[in-house]
Amino acid sequence: MKYPLFITQHGELKRESNSLVFSGELIKKAIPLAQISEIHCLARVSLTSGAIDILSEKSIPVHFYTTKGDYKGSFINDASPRGKLHLKQAEHYLNPEKRAYIAQQMVQGIQNNMAFTLSRWGINPVKLNSISVEGSSMEELMGIEAQLWNLYYAYFGEVLGVKDFKRTRRPPEDEINALISYGNGVVYGLALSSVLKAGLDPSIGFLHEPSEKRYSLALDIADVFKPLYVFSTIKALIKNKVMKRSDFSRNKNSVYLSREGKRKFLEALTDTLRRTVYYKPWRRSMSYRFMMDYEARRLVRHLKGKSKYKAFKPWWR
Amino acid sequence: MKYPLFITQHGELKRESNSLVFSGELIKKAIPLAQISEIHCLARVSLTSGAIDILSEKSIPVHFYTTKGDYKGSFINDASPRGKLHLKQAEHYLNPEKRAYIAQQMVQGIQNNMAFTLSRWGINPVKLNSISVEGSSMEELMGIEAQLWNLYYAYFGEVLGVKDFKRTRRPPEDEINALISYGNGVVYGLALSSVLKAGLDPSIGFLHEPSEKRYSLALDIADVFKPLYVFSTIKALIKNKVMKRSDFSRNKNSVYLSREGKRKFLEALTDTLRRTVYYKPWRRSMSYRFMMDYEARRLVRHLKGKSKYKAFKPWWR
Repeated sequence: MKYPLFITQHGELKRESNSLVFSGELIKKAIPLAQISEIHCLARVSLTSGAIDILSEKSIPVHFYTTKGDYKGSFINDASPRGKLHLKQAEHYLNPEKRAYIAQQMVQGIQNNMAFTLSRWGINPVKLNSISVEGSSMEELMGIEAQLWNLYYAYFGEVLGVKDFKRTRRPPEDEINALISYGNGVVYGLALSSVLKAGLDPSIGFLHEPSEKRYSLALDIADVFKPLYVFSTIKALIKNKVMKRSDFSRNKNSVYLSREGKRKFLEALTDTLRRTVYYKPWRRSMSYRFMMDYEARRLVRHLKGKSKYKAFKPWWR
Repeated sequence: MKYPLFITQHGELKRESNSLVFSGELIKKAIPLAQISEIHCLARVSLTSGAIDILSEKSIPVHFYTTKGDYKGSFINDASPRGKLHLKQAEHYLNPEKRAYIAQQMVQGIQNNMAFTLSRWGINPVKLNSISVEGSSMEELMGIEAQLWNLYYAYFGEVLGVKDFKRTRRPPEDEINALISYGNGVVYGLALSSVLKAGLDPSIGFLHEPSEKRYSLALDIADVFKPLYVFSTIKALIKNKVMKRSDFSRNKNSVYLSREGKRKFLEALTDTLRRTVYYKPWRRSMSYRFMMDYEARRLVRHLKGKSKYKAFKPWWR
């Protein structure tokens, strides 16, 4: 099973004999390439030409983020351009019925993941479950998705014991929102990575309209997994009292994670992503991280007409 | 007018105060960012995090090649994903008539450029000009393109005074073929860069079938400009007696450029790309390099239905 590597320390990726090594301010460490699916640099990281050689040889993408967690750019070696798959993607987007089918499944997937996390936290999300996604048009789906998130934020506030929790962004106005914003930025990067690895065109989404600001397919896939990846991680951090006041920096109306706060969040996110659950059809375990890769691959199979894409639904307890 | 920067020396791209600086084995030089469209690293080049910041801010892609000149990977910051344009591209590919129209114009463009370079070198390419591209089907176009290249190689051998010149690749078997192979690799990178800058999906070509080996749209655009970029440059190098025996390395049946040979070729190619000619509709000059960017932009306008794509034809003498 391969996992993403999050780099949270300033430093340099370089080659030493035949290994990739990260040399940071505090540590120097060989990177076990066989276990790495992609590298996310959330601190200032340099790439030596030797590192570029290895990364390109092994087709391991490297994504760069600003210190706020916004996506900045990638080093990509696309060993196999997938024009035919991109054409299939366009076909499914351009056909209203085909597009609506995929978008519906995605909204259903969001709802499934929301309900799953909430019931794990001891909540019976009656209001959330009462919403029906089936047979909705694209216009309806947009509304339903917004409604689902609003309900989820309210439930999540309840779980954390925060009264009248409100999602605020640009800027996040409190600690929880700072964690959500940072987490969403990173999960967007994870989704972009899953989508690129599957050979899909990240700019053609189904639920999100293609835009010139963000990769809409990465937004689609990220949304499905936010409850499982971001909100589970925040819940664990709060429950285990990991975060301290000093892990946040306040500035007028905005709250952001400090460097140490980011490190803590990413460590906990890595724990979440490495968690595995038994998947019967394979007779072996699947990691949380791989679920997203698998989602992108299932979409590929759907587009190629090999199997029907069905909403992701946590199958374990 | 912006130009590509070819880096042919091992070294490092880094930030110094607010500038991008290349620090190589022999030279250290500030890079005039306002004049740079993209960077092609044909030697071993490292990227510091400071360089990544500036490159991402200015949306300047960096392409990496093996020392043989094969494309290896890119650092890309796509500031504006173009899903809508990719959908238009797919529409034109999927509609047989629309696809054939674009492919015809491209083959016509190849023929125009071949004829132009040949007549500059004092040859009247009667056989080449007698071939008609108009109204050909996709199947016919493939055959026509191959026929055009075979004729062109024969003419080119004549121009260089090489008897029975034969194009050989993987490996190139003589000096001229070594130059063509290296030049074609670099021009593929230039085309990829033009296509990415225009926001097109490089994996959906019109003349070349989408494949999993190469970006087919980059192949399409590269082909149109090979006579003008690669063959003009080789002709100039030979005419001016720039290349020496020591600029090539021989190994059994294969001939490759040495490091100094590559440097010389890229210097001459840069001269070619910086050449400008007056373009009446704009009442100003256009560089050879920009013609390829412009070609990609004209294709974008065609796909968006803003103007009809017409084969590129050198308009000067």
